[in-house]
Amino acid sequence: MVLYERNAFLLLELSVRITETDDKMRAFAEQVFASETKDETIRDEISMFDVAEDCPIIHHEMAHHLLHYLIFHSKKRSRTMAVPTGASQAAATVVSVEVDTPTYLEVPDFQRVAVIGDYAAGVTMDDFELACRGLYRALTIREKYMRLAFQRFPRTASQYLRQTEGESFRPEEQLEPVFTSPPKEGEDPFDVKNLPKNLGYVARMKDGVIYVYNDAAAADKHQPKDMPYPDLNTFIDDMNFLIALIAQGPTKTYTHRRLKFLMSKFNVHEMLNEMEEMKEVKKNPHRDFYNCRKVDTHIHAAACMNQKHLLRFIKKSYRVDAERVVHNLKGKEVTMKELFQSLNLHPYDLTVDSLDVHAGRQTFQRFDKFNAKYNPVGASELRDLYLKTENHINGEYFATIIKEVASDLEEARYQYAEPRLSIYGCNANEWNKLSNWFVSLLFVLNFVPHFGKMLENIFLPVFKATIDPQSSPELSIFLKHVTGFDSVDDESKHSGHMFSTKSPKPEEWDIAKNPSYTYYIYYMYANIAALNQLRKQRGMNTFMFRPHCGEAGAITHLLAAFMTADNISHGLNLKKSPVLQYLYVLTQIPIAMSPLSNNSLFLEYAKNPLLEFHKKGLVVSLSTDDPMQFHYTKEPLMEEYAIAAQVFKLSTCDMCEIARNSVLQSALSDEEKCHFLGKDYLKEGPEGNDIRKTNVPQIRMAYRYETLCYELNLIKEGLKSE
Amino acid sequence: MVLYERNAFLLLELSVRITETDDKMRAFAEQVFASETKDETIRDEISMFDVAEDCPIIHHEMAHHLLHYLIFHSKKRSRTMAVPTGASQAAATVVSVEVDTPTYLEVPDFQRVAVIGDYAAGVTMDDFELACRGLYRALTIREKYMRLAFQRFPRTASQYLRQTEGESFRPEEQLEPVFTSPPKEGEDPFDVKNLPKNLGYVARMKDGVIYVYNDAAAADKHQPKDMPYPDLNTFIDDMNFLIALIAQGPTKTYTHRRLKFLMSKFNVHEMLNEMEEMKEVKKNPHRDFYNCRKVDTHIHAAACMNQKHLLRFIKKSYRVDAERVVHNLKGKEVTMKELFQSLNLHPYDLTVDSLDVHAGRQTFQRFDKFNAKYNPVGASELRDLYLKTENHINGEYFATIIKEVASDLEEARYQYAEPRLSIYGCNANEWNKLSNWFVSLLFVLNFVPHFGKMLENIFLPVFKATIDPQSSPELSIFLKHVTGFDSVDDESKHSGHMFSTKSPKPEEWDIAKNPSYTYYIYYMYANIAALNQLRKQRGMNTFMFRPHCGEAGAITHLLAAFMTADNISHGLNLKKSPVLQYLYVLTQIPIAMSPLSNNSLFLEYAKNPLLEFHKKGLVVSLSTDDPMQFHYTKEPLMEEYAIAAQVFKLSTCDMCEIARNSVLQSALSDEEKCHFLGKDYLKEGPEGNDIRKTNVPQIRMAYRYETLCYELNLIKEGLKSE
Repeated sequence: MVLYERNAFLLLELSVRITETDDKMRAFAEQVFASETKDETIRDEISMFDVAEDCPIIHHEMAHHLLHYLIFHSKKRSRTMAVPTGASQAAATVVSVEVDTPTYLEVPDFQRVAVIGDYAAGVTMDDFELACRGLYRALTIREKYMRLAFQRFPRTASQYLRQTEGESFRPEEQLEPVFTSPPKEGEDPFDVKNLPKNLGYVARMKDGVIYVYNDAAAADKHQPKDMPYPDLNTFIDDMNFLIALIAQGPTKTYTHRRLKFLMSKFNVHEMLNEMEEMKEVKKNPHRDFYNCRKVDTHIHAAACMNQKHLLRFIKKSYRVDAERVVHNLKGKEVTMKELFQSLNLHPYDLTVDSLDVHAGRQTFQRFDKFNAKYNPVGASELRDLYLKTENHINGEYFATIIKEVASDLEEARYQYAEPRLSIYGCNANEWNKLSNWFVSLLFVLNFVPHFGKMLENIFLPVFKATIDPQSSPELSIFLKHVTGFDSVDDESKHSGHMFSTKSPKPEEWDIAKNPSYTYYIYYMYANIAALNQLRKQRGMNTFMFRPHCGEAGAITHLLAAFMTADNISHGLNLKKSPVLQYLYVLTQIPIAMSPLSNNSLFLEYAKNPLLEFHKKGLVVSLSTDDPMQFHYTKEPLMEEYAIAAQVFKLSTCDMCEIARNSVLQSALSDEEKCHFLGKDYLKEGPEGNDIRKTNVPQIRMAYRYETLCYELNLIKEGLKSE
Repeated sequence: MVLYERNAFLLLELSVRITETDDKMRAFAEQVFASETKDETIRDEISMFDVAEDCPIIHHEMAHHLLHYLIFHSKKRSRTMAVPTGASQAAATVVSVEVDTPTYLEVPDFQRVAVIGDYAAGVTMDDFELACRGLYRALTIREKYMRLAFQRFPRTASQYLRQTEGESFRPEEQLEPVFTSPPKEGEDPFDVKNLPKNLGYVARMKDGVIYVYNDAAAADKHQPKDMPYPDLNTFIDDMNFLIALIAQGPTKTYTHRRLKFLMSKFNVHEMLNEMEEMKEVKKNPHRDFYNCRKVDTHIHAAACMNQKHLLRFIKKSYRVDAERVVHNLKGKEVTMKELFQSLNLHPYDLTVDSLDVHAGRQTFQRFDKFNAKYNPVGASELRDLYLKTENHINGEYFATIIKEVASDLEEARYQYAEPRLSIYGCNANEWNKLSNWFVSLLFVLNFVPHFGKMLENIFLPVFKATIDPQSSPELSIFLKHVTGFDSVDDESKHSGHMFSTKSPKPEEWDIAKNPSYTYYIYYMYANIAALNQLRKQRGMNTFMFRPHCGEAGAITHLLAAFMTADNISHGLNLKKSPVLQYLYVLTQIPIAMSPLSNNSLFLEYAKNPLLEFHKKGLVVSLSTDDPMQFHYTKEPLMEEYAIAAQVFKLSTCDMCEIARNSVLQSALSDEEKCHFLGKDYLKEGPEGNDIRKTNVPQIRMAYRYETLCYELNLIKEGLKSE
């Protein structure tokens, strides 16, 4: 397997490179970490980025910046774009290439914003070069971890990295996750007859990571098969490097200025080209915001219905099933009628108010109270009955509700959802129970007890089903439709533990002391990476790591996700670190944002950074998180888009771009993405966009692509002198 | 008619009282007005109210205020409320009355906020008394104009006014508008057989107001029947008094402080009783926000469908009617196919984007651009065809679209709308055309040409149909379902004219020089008042004056509406005048607010004063204005509520209160209001609320009522020394 070797090589090469600075780096990282736990200090440390908008210095700086704008107009009716080239060029390269493309790929003339002169963006040459070196290495770190786990890294960034290294980019090195295709006409998706045969391998957990061995003998001697995953030491070295980088003064200044520039550049672009973009969109027949595809990229199955829907379902179930035994109450089987009697309730009297699952002012900044809202009428018995897969009726009601939501979405036609289910890792049987219940949905992890055992409970069954699918056919089928792993927790709780090589092993953590978020993330990632390599070899679908991250808590969460996650949910805290935010721009990490959820929990709507992120070129999508708690209407995803459009005054073009992002971020299969976005969706820039399907104007695509190339090119330039 | 005599008496009495100060007042009013036209100056004049929230002085003052709060807890389980009494009491009177009421009327115990001591609210005794005198007179002015036109004035305020005057309140003096009841089972609402007979009166316009005479001879001698309406001189005297009042320093200070206090009081109330209010709501079976009635109190028929709906309708109409002659193009009759060909369009290719009826960033602060958005694809021909009542197909499509919207609402069950139609006063035939088209909806006025003739075109047909219904049966039936008059214009255009007794007569205004908003308002009101008296005598339904007001433009608009309007739309500019805002609180004038519309036109969403107004006790409702231009979802009114709930973090209780306000503000009949709000809805305070129907907790009702009584009582106290 060439690809693995290349990965292993990269891993090796990079871990050698950094050893000399390792100890110094760790010391510094620990210092940064220590200050972060104190909270106040870190604010000063990072606050440079949070200067008030009306600060006169910033204004002056911006005015200076704007003076340097030069607007030129490309005269020739040709496809004009900045492409990465090996040749040395001082500023962003805008190359005109005459190409033979279908007309819908043509980028109409538009006004471009360019800066002539001083490309170091107002910092000293030394600082510029220092920052570029750091950013370069950060990019290679993410590239390495993405490849190891078959997750996505943008081709354009890889091309620039190879150029910087003086190597040539090989398209075959681009890895993509493997998704299960939708069943063909007449095909039974639950057919277990054609499951692959047993490989006879043995899977065992060692130090929190599952290894695969040829047989039990090899396992006893710990001679695992060659499936490289980043070992703990490498991971911690890389992490320490990144912790140092995001606290490094010159890099902070440089990235802060670049982000400010990106913001202003977008504003100018919009001012100049808004009408041209709209013209493209208006000329595009049959397609408008309503009928371009949107995926709800972050929605919990247990809260995917709105409150009114749940209420109606409960009433309906009582009318039909009052005499049915549905619950085990303190060891006694009771009917639904008896269950409600024990709660002093009659469903007939229930209202949305007494159901009380909607987030209110009481939940703001109170994640604990929010979690309690999952219990209808405050009764965990009802949550068990209606919103769980594991209960006396084997999750029948929950499955029915989800099917109803799915059928509503089908009616809405252009909306899709990737609901997330929970598994707690409490015992090894959970997977079987869940896959028995299975309704072909996405997958989420919620953590509870002893950490080493928990990892084993989560991953060992999956490894076993991958090695010998016929041994657990239901789980194998289920896994075909699992597209990713999440990690959900109250991020705002601080564990106080700094992850290092000296951290206790997973087996040594017990329930009392929860390990830190970063610790979780590493072990999740390492197991997913190993698992994906095994599954890829077998021609099976792979899993993506898609954690909740940056909703609250320390900035190191977003740093760990930068290393390990294909895409994330929330990302609010990117506001706090210009370095990380800039890295998320450069690597185009998709972020599923849920401003209505944030509005109830962590951040007021008008303060949500969605618009700012969108303008700066972060790849944001809109998602609902928990319609049951946050939304009012029958179409929660449309409600989410509508409110964002109103409050942030998004144009049709912005909304269609966000919708396109959501499809890209999703784990829809290649076939579906081709159908929804156009056959070349994997290409970056305007050539990857089919306006007839996405309704995103080519001018916008060209602006995004050229802007990204410009930023990547700066880093390449900064490394020239080395 | 006793009531009219009482009104006439009031009119007389008040106009005598003010003659001495008349000239001085006018001079001052002119000065204020002159400064307002200069815009800058007035800002300083009124800016006291606009002090930034973080101004240290205000903070200090607030801290001082809060120190005076005393929170006490009513111990006894009884109905506790402040009722207006004749006895002298220094501070707010909280009287415990044991009453025999149904349990749903019971107000649960809650924590009350009271201020002990200094009731002059921190101003000197002289200033306090001065302010109270001014406010008292302002209240009597509105009371007078409301009675003359059968519009609403709150009973509680009237009770305090009578007490202040040392008179006793007579319930029979309370006037209510007369609304047409919904047709009974089996009754034909379009039956013209039972129209009242001809009275034989003669109606003629003189100086812009229509008079009714016994016969032509009396008309020639100008001996009108006794139907008192406020004459021009009285109106202008009253107006000048109010202009002087809102600019009077001590009154501004006093009302500003009272409003600040009301705001803080609500915040404290909410903090203390939120949970108690929620408890009431949760205990209330069967009723929640979704199934309590909401009326869209301000929606234009020509934009009542959302953009997607209009698009679908156009496509559908083309599929069915392509070959039908639908339009007159430059004198030539053309089919729909030819019409679209002449526009270079094919409906099949149309999208929401090319339809281009949605407001965007381009319309902000550009009312002119916004109006152009009424034209689908920018073509006025399509507006004529689809959104007008008067066209080649007699408004058939428009009627069909409205019926579709109505049927959507019927499906939604708890939502109602009062769509507004346009009449321009261009010729006397408009009424007949409109009533021929008639779909039993509300009614709006849009002004265009010569003013005297325009008033005649608008009102003379209505007077004639009132005197002799059988002469124009269709119009008579139509008028039964007209509930009010509006006046729509771009308020931000300033006419530069100060309305006074020396203003030109309506006949003297031509199209070139538009008369001022206040001038319009007076003549609209005077004619409506006269008309209502005639209709009331005949047992017919009366009309309310419900203008657009305070969306932009001068503060005098809101002042004129205070004198003449039953309720208004928008009211944003109340922010600019503490005196007017306080008067709107005291007289509980309903305000239909449309924050999404404002967000696209005049004011960003987060800056909308809706929440502030709601907290201070202004009677606000939510309305959509123009779903076609502003909304995204299939349920525009729910979208409006949902966004307000999210951005302003409204509780269920707030939302249900706003929904209740919307029903009260609407022109739904007495039967419907009884059905939707409870049989005692006309009573003020908790006894007028039926939580089983409105879902508004009695604690909230008691808080509002006691607070209002406290404020009214202050004024009574301030007038004691006189």
